Amino acid sequence: MTALLMDRADLVAFLDRDFPEVSGDFAVERVEEAGITLRLKVDARHLRPGGTVSGPSIFALADVAMYLAILTRIGPLALTVTTNAALDFLRKPAAGCDLLAETRLLKLGRSLAVGDVLIYSEGMAKPVARAGLTYSIPPRRG
Amino acid sequence: MTALLMDRADLVAFLDRDFPEVSGDFAVERVEEAGITLRLKVDARHLRPGGTVSGPSIFALADVAMYLAILTRIGPLALTVTTNAALDFLRKPAAGCDLLAETRLLKLGRSLAVGDVLIYSEGMAKPVARAGLTYSIPPRRG
Amino acid sequence: MTALLMDRADLVAFLDRDFPEVSGDFAVERVEEAGITLRLKVDARHLRPGGTVSGPSIFALADVAMYLAILTRIGPLALTVTTNAALDFLRKPAAGCDLLAETRLLKLGRSLAVGDVLIYSEGMAKPVARAGLTYSIPPRRG
Amino acid sequence: MTALLMDRADLVAFLDRDFPEVSGDFAVERVEEAGITLRLKVDARHLRPGGTVSGPSIFALADVAMYLAILTRIGPLALTVTTNAALDFLRKPAAGCDLLAETRLLKLGRSLAVGDVLIYSEGMAKPVARAGLTYSIPPRRG
Repeated sequence: MTALLMDRADLVAFLDRDFPEVSGDFAVERVEEAGITLRLKVDARHLRPGGTVSGPSIFALADVAMYLAILTRIGPLALTVTTNAALDFLRKPAAGCDLLAETRLLKLGRSLAVGDVLIYSEGMAKPVARAGLTYSIPPRRG
Repeated sequence: MTALLMDRADLVAFLDRDFPEVSGDFAVERVEEAGITLRLKVDARHLRPGGTVSGPSIFALADVAMYLAILTRIGPLALTVTTNAALDFLRKPAAGCDLLAETRLLKLGRSLAVGDVLIYSEGMAKPVARAGLTYSIPPRRG
Repeated sequence: MTALLMDRADLVAFLDRDFPEVSGDFAVERVEEAGITLRLKVDARHLRPGGTVSGPSIFALADVAMYLAILTRIGPLALTVTTNAALDFLRKPAAGCDLLAETRLLKLGRSLAVGDVLIYSEGMAKPVARAGLTYSIPPRRG
Repeated sequence: MTALLMDRADLVAFLDRDFPEVSGDFAVERVEEAGITLRLKVDARHLRPGGTVSGPSIFALADVAMYLAILTRIGPLALTVTTNAALDFLRKPAAGCDLLAETRLLKLGRSLAVGDVLIYSEGMAKPVARAGLTYSIPPRRG
């Protein structure tokens, strides 16, 4: 059985220390081996005209969520970088709602990790976006 | 509740009639509202040196699977066309095994359908590939 | 010969009116039939630790650039929305440099437009990122 | 100046030896540092009903073209594998025409190579498809 190398409190501390510019935007809701749930605390600065959440904010949520999900498995290796992202924007997010990202790790190799993320307006059944993400991970000590 | 407009037998008949060049490669294993399972009957013509299934064969499996999954919801509209495909090749397929594709429909709009597919070597727990696919669907009568 | 329906001044005015939250981030550098050049005026809020430009800022630049390039061909249809984005992050952006996005329109259909964008640190020969983007465009008169 | 490690004759010999199943489908038309041109000799087995070239055949052309373009820069390292492919299908290929793929290498790193490909029906000005491709390349001797 795979042990998690970082739990919820570890992820929060990591975000606060290494990504102070954005850590206030996010709340780590759930951390399990199967994946994590990350909340975007939607605020005026994430919105576009009409009250919809901006594309870059959705991308940021997907990317941070998958990044943290990978760190739960490899530890706090901040040199892990995103190499590829594919996003489908499916529906307009509901106005006045936070967004929730649910991660799924598909591959954790020696040098590449791949996963996908579904993003929901809180309380809605159908996703507003899907993202597939690839990360290059630095060499780890055996 | 959404009714399926095509069942397993309908999909098989559709493939035989509209895609006779490739229908022999595939077997429809499961058809449910949540998605379908499609088998690629792996044969010498799908292989690359070393016995691995070729990338184009994996793409074909993902594309046909998602296409059929959409048809179960909109009926046999052969003018539906693939507009975008994003594939992650995760692991080398197991030698001498069929591949199974599991579909997930994420959006069925008036003019666009979006879904993703996980592909497994039969009997293996971890996917060999993931595909996200978008289709343009022709106008339907109300 | 295709006439441009919006020139540089039109794009600037459109951004200021319809996207006031972000228009200050960008400068329209060049508008031609072959494509446009858009500058991201890199500022502290676009940076991540180490001085690198954040992924969401790069995504925003690519998306706004391609969106404006499409508007030069169809006019100011603000209901045009991004449906798909695929990004490759190629190199770390140079510190202290603006980013420039160069667009290329690959298809302008009745309901879908597709293009790609290369993003450079100003003065550098090799791109820092590439994006492929698809937009759903609303029905047009005439 | 970067020297090419494989020329046109080398690529043809490599395809014949390492990919005999498909080498007859392709002709190497042009090999330059900026990229290569690869022809798909379109035949009945590449077609779908209505005479259009199949999606898997277009994917195969893009993938083989970019793969060969990378080999011109790193030599015949057959362990190089495709990890990600993003395809946009833009227009229906012209009936009875070969397809030509034009490659563009965007990054050649130590472990990853990224490029994109435009695919044309021979003699047509507008592309039928675009592909972005990423490859994992095995460690090279210094």
